[in-house]
Formats: sequence, C-alpha cells, structure tokens
Amino acid sequence: MSQLFMFEKPLGMRDTLPELYEAKSQVQDAIESEMKLWGYQFMDTPALEYYDTVGTASAILDQQLFKLLDNQGHTLVLRPEMTTPIARVAASKLLQENLPLRLAYSASVFRAQQREGGRPAEFEQIGVEAIADESVSADGEVIALMVSALREAGIKSFQISVGHIAFVQELFLQILGTEERAQALTKFLYEKNFVGYREHVKSLNLSSIDKQRLLDFLKLRGGEEVIERALCLIENEKGREAIQKLKQLWDIVVDYGEQANLKLDLTLVSHMSYYTGILFEVYADKVGFPIGNGGRYNLLLEKFGKTTGATGFALRLDRILEALGELKKEVTTECVLFSGERRKEAFQLAKAKRGQGIKTLLQDIQGVRNIDEFTGQFAEVTFLIGKAGKGS
Amino acid sequence: MSQLFMFEKPLGMRDTLPELYEAKSQVQDAIESEMKLWGYQFMDTPALEYYDTVGTASAILDQQLFKLLDNQGHTLVLRPEMTTPIARVAASKLLQENLPLRLAYSASVFRAQQREGGRPAEFEQIGVEAIADESVSADGEVIALMVSALREAGIKSFQISVGHIAFVQELFLQILGTEERAQALTKFLYEKNFVGYREHVKSLNLSSIDKQRLLDFLKLRGGEEVIERALCLIENEKGREAIQKLKQLWDIVVDYGEQANLKLDLTLVSHMSYYTGILFEVYADKVGFPIGNGGRYNLLLEKFGKTTGATGFALRLDRILEALGELKKEVTTECVLFSGERRKEAFQLAKAKRGQGIKTLLQDIQGVRNIDEFTGQFAEVTFLIGKAGKGS
Repeated sequence: MSQLFMFEKPLGMRDTLPELYEAKSQVQDAIESEMKLWGYQFMDTPALEYYDTVGTASAILDQQLFKLLDNQGHTLVLRPEMTTPIARVAASKLLQENLPLRLAYSASVFRAQQREGGRPAEFEQIGVEAIADESVSADGEVIALMVSALREAGIKSFQISVGHIAFVQELFLQILGTEERAQALTKFLYEKNFVGYREHVKSLNLSSIDKQRLLDFLKLRGGEEVIERALCLIENEKGREAIQKLKQLWDIVVDYGEQANLKLDLTLVSHMSYYTGILFEVYADKVGFPIGNGGRYNLLLEKFGKTTGATGFALRLDRILEALGELKKEVTTECVLFSGERRKEAFQLAKAKRGQGIKTLLQDIQGVRNIDEFTGQFAEVTFLIGKAGKGS
Repeated sequence: MSQLFMFEKPLGMRDTLPELYEAKSQVQDAIESEMKLWGYQFMDTPALEYYDTVGTASAILDQQLFKLLDNQGHTLVLRPEMTTPIARVAASKLLQENLPLRLAYSASVFRAQQREGGRPAEFEQIGVEAIADESVSADGEVIALMVSALREAGIKSFQISVGHIAFVQELFLQILGTEERAQALTKFLYEKNFVGYREHVKSLNLSSIDKQRLLDFLKLRGGEEVIERALCLIENEKGREAIQKLKQLWDIVVDYGEQANLKLDLTLVSHMSYYTGILFEVYADKVGFPIGNGGRYNLLLEKFGKTTGATGFALRLDRILEALGELKKEVTTECVLFSGERRKEAFQLAKAKRGQGIKTLLQDIQGVRNIDEFTGQFAEVTFLIGKAGKGS
C-alpha cells in the first residue's frame, strides 16, 4: 500500500462510528420530521455534477471543489453545497407552473481542504429551499422553521443574526463610490475582523462625517431598535427598502412568537455570493462556527433559466452534534446466546422479543471466543446452552 | 456553460424527486429498523478513500472506479462498495477484542459507467456485515435477516440462490488441473452463459466422464436434494466440506422457518472476488438484476491486518423500488393560505395542526400567482384571507 498506512483516510475525511451515527440519526430524524410537518418535500441530487453547470453556478471557491474527469473528458465536481443542484432541478423539472415550491434535503457535501486543520472535507447538511415565493413571509417562515427544527433537535440555547446584504452594498457604495472600495471594506466584515475594519475606515480619504457613518454602521446590531438607527444612516432608496424588509421580517417572526432567539446584525455578510436580500446565520453556545446559515437568493435560478426568487437555510449536522455535547450512551440491546441444541428455541425467542420492539441480537456460542467480554455489552443476556431445560 | 446544456448531469447520475424520495425513505426505514432490531449497529465511512488502501482492496474493477487527485498528489476513489471501508474501520478501531461485530450501513456507492446504458453510476446500498464470527450460524443469520428485511420492505415474492465458491473452485481445479483453465470456465458461470459453458466443456480435452461431471454440475440447482447430488460429484475434501457447510446452513434457515424463498445453486459465482465461502444472491419478480447479494469473505480483513472471517449482504435500494412497482401517491398535506391581516391566526392554526402530526404548509397569498393551481395540490385548504371573521 505504498507510503500510506493501510488505515489512513484522505485529508478531512471522517468515519462515523456506531455511537456517533446513532446520535446523528436521532438529530437528523428530529429535524427532518419538523421540516416535513411544515410541508417541505425531501429530494436528492447526485454527488457528482458537471463543473460547467452546477460547479460554476455554486458560490463555493474553485480551490475548495473536488474535481475529476469523466470517461468523456468532462470535468466533474463533488457537490460543494445543495442549493445550486436543487435550483437546477427546480428550474428544469419542478417549476413548470411557477407555483411556490418547498423543498428539503439531507445530504453530504464536499469541500477540499488545503491542510489538516480539523475541518471536515465531507459533511452533512440538512436544509430547506422555499422557491418561487418572493414575499417576506417566505423568509420569515424559513427562520421560524429553523428555530423549530433546532429546538426539536435538542439545541436549547442559540442565537440567530439577521442582516440584509443590499443594505451593506448600498451604504458602502454610497459612501465609498466604487464597487472595488466597497468590496475591500466588506472583506473585513466577512472575516468578522472589526479591528481591521476600523483601521481601514480611518485610513480612507473620506469626510469625517462619512467615516463616522461607517463606524456607526458597526453598531447596527441588536433588537428591533436597530431598524430606526439604520434608517438614520442611509439615504439611498434601495438601502431603505432593505431595512423595510427587515422590519416586515421582524414582525412576522414576532407573529410566530419566535423573536427571543433573533437579533438584527446589519454587519452580517456571507461567503455565499448568491445571496441577494435577507441573510442570516445561527450560532449555538460553545461552538465557534455557525451551526447553520441561510438567506434569500433571487438570481441563482436565473443561471438555470428561471427568473424567480428563493430563500432557504442549511444546518450543519456535525456542528449541531458539537453543540449538543457529550452523547449519552444507552444500552438497550438484549442478547440470546445459544448452542446448536437449542438453536430453534433461540430463534423463536429472538423473534418474539423483536416483535415487541426489543433490539435482540442472536449469537451462536461457537462464534465467540471471550464470552464474558461479549455478554458484557448487552442490557440483558439469555443463555440457551446445552440440552433444553438444562441451560442456565 | 460551454457545450453542455445547463440541466445536464454526468453519465449515470440521477436526481431523486420528492415522490420517489418519499417511497425510498419508507423502504429504507423499514429495512433499517429490521436490521437494528436484530442488533446491527449502523455506521458510515467517507465517500472518498485512498486508492492505495480501500481502492485496491475492493473487488470492483479498476475501470469502474471514479478516481481523482487530492492536493497532496494522492489518488482518491469514490467508494465503489461499503464492505471494504467497513473492513478498514473494523480492523483499525472496532475489532480490538476480537468480539463478533454486527455492523450495518445505508450509503451511496459509485461505479463509473463507460456509456449511458441505463445503469446508475451512483446508487444506494443497505447492508450488514457480521464480522469475527466464523460459525455457519452467522451466514444463516444474515440470510434470515435479509428475508425479514425484504418482507418488511414490502417485497412479496423473491428467491434467494445460495452456493459455495470453494465447491466450484475445487471441482474445477480437480477436473481441469490448472487455475487458468478453471477460471476460463468460471467466467461462463459469472456471465450466466450456460450455452457457452456447455460448448466450452465439449471442446475441452477431457475424458467423457469428466465432461459429464462438468455438465452434471450445471444441474446442481434446487432444494435440499442438491446436497446429496453434489456430494456424489466431488471427491476432494475441501469441496465436500463446502457442501457440509451448505447443509448446515440449510438446516439453520429451516430453524428460522425461512426456507421457502431459498434454493441451492452451486453454479453461483460472483464478480466480488473477495468471497471465500457461502455466497448468495436474491432476485425479485420482474427485476432483471439481483436486488441484493452477499456471502462470506474470510480474507478481506487480512488486507487490513486482522485474520478473522466475516459475512454479510448488500441490498440495492433502486432495484427494490423497481420490484415494488408503481408508487401509490398519497396526498396528506394540508394548507393554510393567509393574507397579512390574519397572519398570526394562520400561524397559530398551522402550529396546532402540526402539533397533531398533520403536515401543514403555510402560504402567504402574496407569494402565489395561480391560487387554484396552488391549492389543488393539498388534501385540505383553510383560507384565512381578509379581515378576521370575514375570510371565506
């Protein structure tokens, strides 16, 4: 096996052993059930897509894509996220009538890592896409659903920050004059490098009033009161519209009764370049990265020939498990250990137990070398050994 | 998007639309529940593995592997099956105590297709591996579990053929003298080309008695009586041992009460070269390919440094769905259509319905262009439009 040790796995690739798998399934089931209850329909797309279609339409950086060549010489990519493949399917097959679509997925996505830094190169996302509904109600719905799903998953404490990408774009463009200068400043926000942001602003050739506006912008984080403050900071029409949308969204979330976990953060931007409106991310206690994020993307479907808007979110299963903390290990499986003489009896007993929903493992004693070690794994062990009636 | 049409997918890649996804999930859940009831523990491994480890240890032909290079210059493969990755994990992490392990998986595997011939390049397998138990009871258990799982999945009519690879190998080697000649004849069996087999046998430079033995071998298919006939055909000790194992297996399956779907077929061989003993495949009515297959592989774990045997099977989800035939479409989702004035009331109604387990979709009327078309999708629609008390 060349220089590689036979057990090694590619960079960022993980095994999911039974205990973690079980915990993961429970969280997955809880979230999926909630999404289904809200009328979202699950679907799936292939792991491999053409680079020229989904690969280029996706917002993930080129160097993070796993690429390969197929037998026909086309470049393929392992899907780096699910929103773009679902946009492809919606545009080609599901959007004929232009009716609102509510789709969901639970799937592995792939992002190549440059070095082993603890970041997985394959991870599971569970998410929804509300397509062809441009009302703010759709944005409110996905946020309320996210709150519900996280609660069902057992996450007790989390915080959702909501911003609007158009507000940032309009404010920066208005003050700084060019896209390039606006982007340079936005980069600090994306990196959440507020110290760097302040220093950059101070170094700019701007009036002291404009500098102060850019510094005041950083304070646009908090509750509903942020809306008034934001309106004072921007004159531009599109920027004000963005804030009006956030106000509508806030009211909708209040009607859901879910505002407790919500705060406004107008400094929020995303590496997902397809977002065009409201966007959000959710953090849980003790986890350094967002456990989920989402937003409105009104231009992505155009890349697949449909002019309609969409909104959605994706939760990261690995980070939700991190937020949930230590797994509680529950042993509920029983064992029926048998020898040949009482085999049939053992099979019948196991069948009866399974019929009652009890996880029951059958084991021929011939197949085990260390009986004590083996039986120690189970909640209960029935021995059917030797001649009938004489087993212990 | 270059020469590719924007909706195209790579060769053999499929989307799973909501209706099919739902049917698939139900089958998957039924099979997985049964496996768990039998004490099997689910786990997962990464989609990408090193070519030099899992890639070469796997029995899948090199030209069927999807290969790519990682940033470090190693060749990676998309896993073509799950038995080898699970053997890697079992050997490296789970087999410390050499206790019998019962593992299960439900995962996508990948096999590159040379041309579009209707064969998927990505498909889901659900399977089990009973590791470190060399008793025939383990082989019997996986077959009985497979029967149970298929029944739970709703497959009413299916047939399992069981053979033993060592019997074929020993018989052919004994009569033909060399591995090469034995392999040439085995190839006809793998292709199920019995006409070709007969012609090949007739062309061989053998005594008429040996030719007759090779032709009689083809008749070793049927019920328990095959065992006696097989014993008459072989003198070699290892070959007779193989038949004794099949006899024990038959008796075990009888004790499970599951022999109705079983037949012996000593002509059965497999393209999975890692099988070393009992092997089997299962066919359902109206499906041209096996819906599942399995067998004992006592040497695969050695490639990962552990000398212990294992047995297991894999079911193909796509073919099980084919066997189940047309999907029955059940519309159970309700809809609450609201306008802004009655939004809060709508949210509360939806919440109450969901609390009762009713799938309930909320829709702001502002987000829908064609109301009739939209509402036609649901089992029931509640309109909360206009001022409270005046809605239809």
